[in-house]
Amino acid sequence: MVAFSNAVNSRHSEDIKLLMSQASGKRLISFAGGMPNNDLFPVKQIDDIYNALSEDIKKLCFQYGPTSGYPPLIHSLKNYLNHKGLPVNENHILVTTGSLQAISIITQEFVNEGDIILTENPCFVGALSVFETFGATIESIPIDHEGIHIKTLKSKLASLKKTPKFLYVTPNYHNPAGIIYSQKRKTELLEVLSGTGIILLEDDAYSDLYFNESEKYLTKPMKSFEAKDVEIIYTGSFSKILGPGFRLGYMLSSKDIFEKAESIKQALDACTSNFMQILANEFLAQHKLEPYLKFLRSEYLERKNLLQKYLKKHIPADITWEEPKGGFYIWLQLPEHINSTDIFKESIKKGVVFVTGKTFDPKSKKDDRLRLSFSNMPKESIEKGVIILSEAIKKVLQASKIVRP
Amino acid sequence: MVAFSNAVNSRHSEDIKLLMSQASGKRLISFAGGMPNNDLFPVKQIDDIYNALSEDIKKLCFQYGPTSGYPPLIHSLKNYLNHKGLPVNENHILVTTGSLQAISIITQEFVNEGDIILTENPCFVGALSVFETFGATIESIPIDHEGIHIKTLKSKLASLKKTPKFLYVTPNYHNPAGIIYSQKRKTELLEVLSGTGIILLEDDAYSDLYFNESEKYLTKPMKSFEAKDVEIIYTGSFSKILGPGFRLGYMLSSKDIFEKAESIKQALDACTSNFMQILANEFLAQHKLEPYLKFLRSEYLERKNLLQKYLKKHIPADITWEEPKGGFYIWLQLPEHINSTDIFKESIKKGVVFVTGKTFDPKSKKDDRLRLSFSNMPKESIEKGVIILSEAIKKVLQASKIVRP
Repeated sequence: MVAFSNAVNSRHSEDIKLLMSQASGKRLISFAGGMPNNDLFPVKQIDDIYNALSEDIKKLCFQYGPTSGYPPLIHSLKNYLNHKGLPVNENHILVTTGSLQAISIITQEFVNEGDIILTENPCFVGALSVFETFGATIESIPIDHEGIHIKTLKSKLASLKKTPKFLYVTPNYHNPAGIIYSQKRKTELLEVLSGTGIILLEDDAYSDLYFNESEKYLTKPMKSFEAKDVEIIYTGSFSKILGPGFRLGYMLSSKDIFEKAESIKQALDACTSNFMQILANEFLAQHKLEPYLKFLRSEYLERKNLLQKYLKKHIPADITWEEPKGGFYIWLQLPEHINSTDIFKESIKKGVVFVTGKTFDPKSKKDDRLRLSFSNMPKESIEKGVIILSEAIKKVLQASKIVRP
Repeated sequence: MVAFSNAVNSRHSEDIKLLMSQASGKRLISFAGGMPNNDLFPVKQIDDIYNALSEDIKKLCFQYGPTSGYPPLIHSLKNYLNHKGLPVNENHILVTTGSLQAISIITQEFVNEGDIILTENPCFVGALSVFETFGATIESIPIDHEGIHIKTLKSKLASLKKTPKFLYVTPNYHNPAGIIYSQKRKTELLEVLSGTGIILLEDDAYSDLYFNESEKYLTKPMKSFEAKDVEIIYTGSFSKILGPGFRLGYMLSSKDIFEKAESIKQALDACTSNFMQILANEFLAQHKLEPYLKFLRSEYLERKNLLQKYLKKHIPADITWEEPKGGFYIWLQLPEHINSTDIFKESIKKGVVFVTGKTFDPKSKKDDRLRLSFSNMPKESIEKGVIILSEAIKKVLQASKIVRP
């Protein structure tokens, strides 16, 4: 382990500061936080589960558990992942303290200082933060509306002198880009990786949050594709389908990778909270997840529809975006000559925040995008927020025209 | 970060296997596990707390929180640690996923592959496992009934070519040795460290578990001693005073150390479970801890007294030990010519398990001790367990006499 360096990025602390300023009572309209809205959590369901636990199981909530996870939860997860087509019998599940811990463990398992990790550009900022903390060199590949750009990936691979340790992707309802990979793109990606020795780290936090049942098939994980000669580690999370406060995630991988990961987990926090695992297990085992997901999907669809409608109505015409098919995010494309940081400076004056584009660029530069999250947004605030945002964009556009001859 | 090595020790997995064999229904009498007994957890109190939470606070249980911890819990911890005399205003609290995570974070903050960490011998096996995983070179110093051996520490320091990064100690009701440092020894230790640049990592998981109110003063943390020129990081845990299943611990340190630790925590699991922090905070804020500790102390005292009584009654005369003044453990000293692994092999045949001495030696060799934990032991099983253990010891003693001329 290389002792921690002061150079660790401040990207995430920016997000946290935003949240804190929200929490401190300023009346912000926030498109920033990538978390569920407090009013959507299954509080009643967990109340019922907790109060129906037997005395013996309650006692177990307080106790240590195995490092790999609470066995009944592992059993329930097997069923759940099996329904997604994942090869649960040929692989092993490690329960983690959030899926970010899984990403952190995998990084610690494979990456030495200076080793290369491939990411998408844009990329989930939490993962970037982990990769940087552990001293990885990040090489990023752009994505379009169908997924990672295959041609650029190929030329990147050809140009690198060292084989990257893994490629990190979030193919389903991408954070921040909002897109879902096409099946064709998933297949092409697997073909490119085949035989290279580059592990695919498939982070799938959002796949249950499709808006349209008929598009569910698009969420099929690449780990279920039976690709040849590609090692795939699949990670998932309870943060978006139960609550981030549980700090529960998991990874599904081959035995060798699992065993080393389990040892690292042992040296990080010994085991995941039994209390949280027991509640989550009952949520799955009592079949409370699927009805809750139906509710969530309709809530998020409604918020997405409102945001889509008001963006169309108010936002200047030269701003474009892909309408998302699921997940939490709309990823606005700005005209090249303006940047989201300037817009942020304007919009926050009027109480509207979002996350700037460069936050998700591994080099913290590319700033012609901005992320709007609709997951945590009260429906009645969406139009007001969009109007303020639109005014901020117009102001910045106007200023850019004055500056440019 | 140095990629994870296969060489990671198997010490902890030994412990876990023991627990698992217990859990799998074999009727073992276990002096092995260093955890509270399931029947002692404050289930009723947490029930009451949970069911009295407001709807808004319940929703917050499901949500992300700040990386440093849930602010009301930090406030409650300040009060709690202030009562221990700790300098809470000049330092910062980081809430962690168990105190093992705090130890892991501190190791990652300070230790590069090959750096030296000083430990006691014997040493808490969970910490050893962390230090080894992160590639530290461990140098250990023996302890006696009053604490770390000062003269050996001094000569060790004189002999080392590189300054150790920190000294890790568990001064109060040591795991496995059961002893508590004398105040004199604590003062001497601080004098030795003063000005050396070696950080003192003071792990204090057991200090609330004294048996006798009149001896409470002995538990005073070294971090409260106002020592000159010694940087002290203090770690604590809810595992022994609420339940390990909560995975809640914390560290108290200076601002610089805190800030880097917070960034590392961010890259390990983003934040600690709000759900668990909120329940723990109410446990402190509603003053439920002190009455519960009174109950725990009397329960553990009773178990210790029974174990002490039956050891005196049954165990061969050449086995010695210090009677503990608190905590979970009795640490038997065997005659030099026998070892605890042989005794274990005998006793497990009759269904009695404990943890062997060498488990706690950084070099996994010194095996003339064994750890008996009374914390997880049903009172009615203690005498039977001691009788079986005594027979196993006698058998091994007998065999050693036959072998030796």
